[in-house]
Amino acid sequence: MRQFIQHHRRQSYLMTLSLVAILVWPGFTTDAAADDASGSIRPRFEVTTEEAFDTDTVPPYAGQHDEVYAHIDRNLDEHVRHIQRWIRQPSISPLGIGIDEMAELVRRDFVDMGFSEAELVPTDGNPGVWGYYDAGADKTLMVYMMYDVQPVDPEDWRTPPFEANLVETDKGIVLMARGATNQKGPQRAFLNALDSIIAVTGNLPVNVMITAEGEEEIGSPHYPQIVTAYEDRLKAASGVLFPMNGKSGGGSIMMNLGVKGIIYWELESTGGDWGGPKNNEIHGSYKVIVDAPALRLVQAIASMTSADGNTILVPGFYDGIIPPTAEQQRLINGMLAVWDDTGMQRSLGLDRWIDGLTGRDAILEYLYMPTLNVDGIWGGYIEAGTKTVLPHKATAKMDARLPPGLDPDATLAKVRKHLDEQGFDDVVIRKFDSYPAAHTSIDDPFVQAALAVFNKRGHEVAVRPWLGGSAPFYQFTERLELPLVFSSPGHGSGAHAPDEYMLIDPVEGSGLSGLDEVEKYYVDLVYALAGQ
Amino acid sequence: MRQFIQHHRRQSYLMTLSLVAILVWPGFTTDAAADDASGSIRPRFEVTTEEAFDTDTVPPYAGQHDEVYAHIDRNLDEHVRHIQRWIRQPSISPLGIGIDEMAELVRRDFVDMGFSEAELVPTDGNPGVWGYYDAGADKTLMVYMMYDVQPVDPEDWRTPPFEANLVETDKGIVLMARGATNQKGPQRAFLNALDSIIAVTGNLPVNVMITAEGEEEIGSPHYPQIVTAYEDRLKAASGVLFPMNGKSGGGSIMMNLGVKGIIYWELESTGGDWGGPKNNEIHGSYKVIVDAPALRLVQAIASMTSADGNTILVPGFYDGIIPPTAEQQRLINGMLAVWDDTGMQRSLGLDRWIDGLTGRDAILEYLYMPTLNVDGIWGGYIEAGTKTVLPHKATAKMDARLPPGLDPDATLAKVRKHLDEQGFDDVVIRKFDSYPAAHTSIDDPFVQAALAVFNKRGHEVAVRPWLGGSAPFYQFTERLELPLVFSSPGHGSGAHAPDEYMLIDPVEGSGLSGLDEVEKYYVDLVYALAGQ
Repeated sequence: MRQFIQHHRRQSYLMTLSLVAILVWPGFTTDAAADDASGSIRPRFEVTTEEAFDTDTVPPYAGQHDEVYAHIDRNLDEHVRHIQRWIRQPSISPLGIGIDEMAELVRRDFVDMGFSEAELVPTDGNPGVWGYYDAGADKTLMVYMMYDVQPVDPEDWRTPPFEANLVETDKGIVLMARGATNQKGPQRAFLNALDSIIAVTGNLPVNVMITAEGEEEIGSPHYPQIVTAYEDRLKAASGVLFPMNGKSGGGSIMMNLGVKGIIYWELESTGGDWGGPKNNEIHGSYKVIVDAPALRLVQAIASMTSADGNTILVPGFYDGIIPPTAEQQRLINGMLAVWDDTGMQRSLGLDRWIDGLTGRDAILEYLYMPTLNVDGIWGGYIEAGTKTVLPHKATAKMDARLPPGLDPDATLAKVRKHLDEQGFDDVVIRKFDSYPAAHTSIDDPFVQAALAVFNKRGHEVAVRPWLGGSAPFYQFTERLELPLVFSSPGHGSGAHAPDEYMLIDPVEGSGLSGLDEVEKYYVDLVYALAGQ
Repeated sequence: MRQFIQHHRRQSYLMTLSLVAILVWPGFTTDAAADDASGSIRPRFEVTTEEAFDTDTVPPYAGQHDEVYAHIDRNLDEHVRHIQRWIRQPSISPLGIGIDEMAELVRRDFVDMGFSEAELVPTDGNPGVWGYYDAGADKTLMVYMMYDVQPVDPEDWRTPPFEANLVETDKGIVLMARGATNQKGPQRAFLNALDSIIAVTGNLPVNVMITAEGEEEIGSPHYPQIVTAYEDRLKAASGVLFPMNGKSGGGSIMMNLGVKGIIYWELESTGGDWGGPKNNEIHGSYKVIVDAPALRLVQAIASMTSADGNTILVPGFYDGIIPPTAEQQRLINGMLAVWDDTGMQRSLGLDRWIDGLTGRDAILEYLYMPTLNVDGIWGGYIEAGTKTVLPHKATAKMDARLPPGLDPDATLAKVRKHLDEQGFDDVVIRKFDSYPAAHTSIDDPFVQAALAVFNKRGHEVAVRPWLGGSAPFYQFTERLELPLVFSSPGHGSGAHAPDEYMLIDPVEGSGLSGLDEVEKYYVDLVYALAGQ
């Protein structure tokens, strides 16, 4: 198993999206006390309506598919075994382990389920998998899947991470394994739901196009190539589903209608013709007549924000943010019902939001402001004790989260221009990940269908215009111009961590849902999209 | 040997003092072009005389001690063996290896040489060694020694580091071993010189008091206790000698009459009631409503310097610097003869000094300005790739070098006050090493004696008021009020590094000195101090 033993910490959709669980509390409505005495250049937006979106106003989905539900109940053990079969094929993209085998396993499942097209999709990286189920239906559902997982440190696990064992916990029986919730569990649960519909009815109520990639955990560098291969056909879909466990441990669901964009870069100062040592650290006493790259980096970063670190001073950084629409204002007012400042702060281990914001002011800040964040910074002597050196190099990892309206590359260009204007033209920017925000309207029929099914099945749902985190969902919403739904009543936790799990059979009264309920939700969702 | 294998990077006198080698070039006189358009609060001092100190004006020492020189020549092999004996007893203070054995070995040598007092000195750390040779003389020489050495990585060495082998190099035959130049070689060479005087004359021309410590490589925390044990007697000495190889590979000698002081601290920002995550890093997307300790640290540091990092903005930081005295101005003018801006810059791997300073302006800056340096900085995610976190903590190691007149604790208090006034009262300062500058006058008879001996023996010497680096020599110059000499014609290199060596037998025409010449220099110095 040694080959599996490696920390890999690259950011991915799901790590981001695990925020879903964090930001869900049945909460208190707090005062929206605005307190902006700062004269800040940071824009503040207003909510000018007291109307609040309420999911209860969406009529519950009326369909009943009892034979399919019964099929799920009868075959639940086999459905668990399908998930276990996926998990027991390790597919660790950061280490290049089991990729081809897993891609073929997914493709084979499509064939076995009666998909008319099931093929590997060559890319410049790991292959994608394409599946098309031709139901002869009017409507088509696009499904995004990822078949790769994170590495593991087996010694940190209660149970070997690729054995896919069922483990008893205080929440009930869970499937504890790498990929259980991120993302093999929910995805295969969705396929189990399709399987049951096909088994009972001989067909699906919608056509299904699945694009699966094997590089999500390394940043999805070639997923756009998979989309390119089927772009015209994908555009004809009615919406995109990303099967995902969306219920928190407390039993509530936050449905996000989008994500922020991101631009990630490294900023580095090294000695050069501007001054400073070029090749290696030198004795610290030379600072007296030698320029210091570490101080230069610090000054360059400091020039980008106010002294409190919370207002971005890069000219034009805030230009282009789209203020809250009427629809979004209603959603924000709706969010207030579950937005619990102190609960969230306690969970995150902090005492306050910036500027002491609370309630609606905090929500507005959370949704509409971009960030400028130092993810990491390092240079010089960073071990124990004292060593007096003048480092020749210092580096910071930085990122900006971008609400709708802010373009990642244009943002980075503003940072570059600002640094140049401040005299830091020698400070190097190395660009990493970059993509814009993604957003689906609450009024989209696919979103309404998802809410209707939640309502029918008795799940409490709060809706947010978008998550503060990021994922390259613009591929769906901007490129293909499709609505995106990524939620379900499933519960899981531990993505990218030891003891990752998906709940299979909850204890009584937990308010959580088991695999059967997750699959029935997907059954209803597919029928609801079909208008049946 | 595994126990020896460890990097230990703590700063010590000798690491600092190895600067001696770097700053010595037979150089060009450069223009002292002042160019201060900055309106900076950084003070600039003037040299108002063209008089230059010239070591040639010091009359050469006239004494001749041919029988002693001959004794050295006859016994050189045995003298090398004495050094080897010291080296072959590892005494690695950072790892606590061989300390007691080495202390006893040194004490035993004092006994064997006829010292009337030779005792271990208990401290709260490693024992010191005290030796007193009662020559019944009018004058007394105090000698500082360190009997400990740095750890080694044996695999990086050409020859096992504790075998003390003689190795042929392009400079001649060297003794290559840990401690060869730092500091066992020069120290035992000095004792060899005393041995030869005693062997030939039956006595020494001066009384000798030796204080040896075994914690130099871990920052000399208990050396003051050793001084305390003999303080009244030590104060009666005429001067302190720290036996040291002072000749660069190029064959020139820079004699430093002092060192700067230093204050070293860590600056740390952690989430707290001011904001920010208190316990662990959180998802980077929360930056939008969460204060960031990493940005706070960056802003706190940035507030302490001008945008170019070269002017310290902490109020009062420069107050109290003692401007160049007439004596120092003459020394500065003398330094110009060997101060080679471009040569030094090339050696350090940089293109320019701050503000494009050259010549006398650079020398003045080097000697009289304090520094504010970032030795290291770290926080958050600092591995490869991208991970988006908001670190709960960020830390910097910082130090300030202090010219005569600036007190370390008062300096740190100014930093604290400045941070508080700037609103960074939550940013923590952790104090590390701290001691003031040390300085001996060129006119002191002991310094004049050392120069006279250099002149007699034909060594080119440049003199500097003090080194930009630091060592706690204030114990000698301020506490005991004694002049300090730390130089000799010996050559060595590689302190704290692999392949450390001391030159024993130089190749013809190298301009370098072998062990015989080093020992004869010490013989003359001891007699010169005695006025004989």
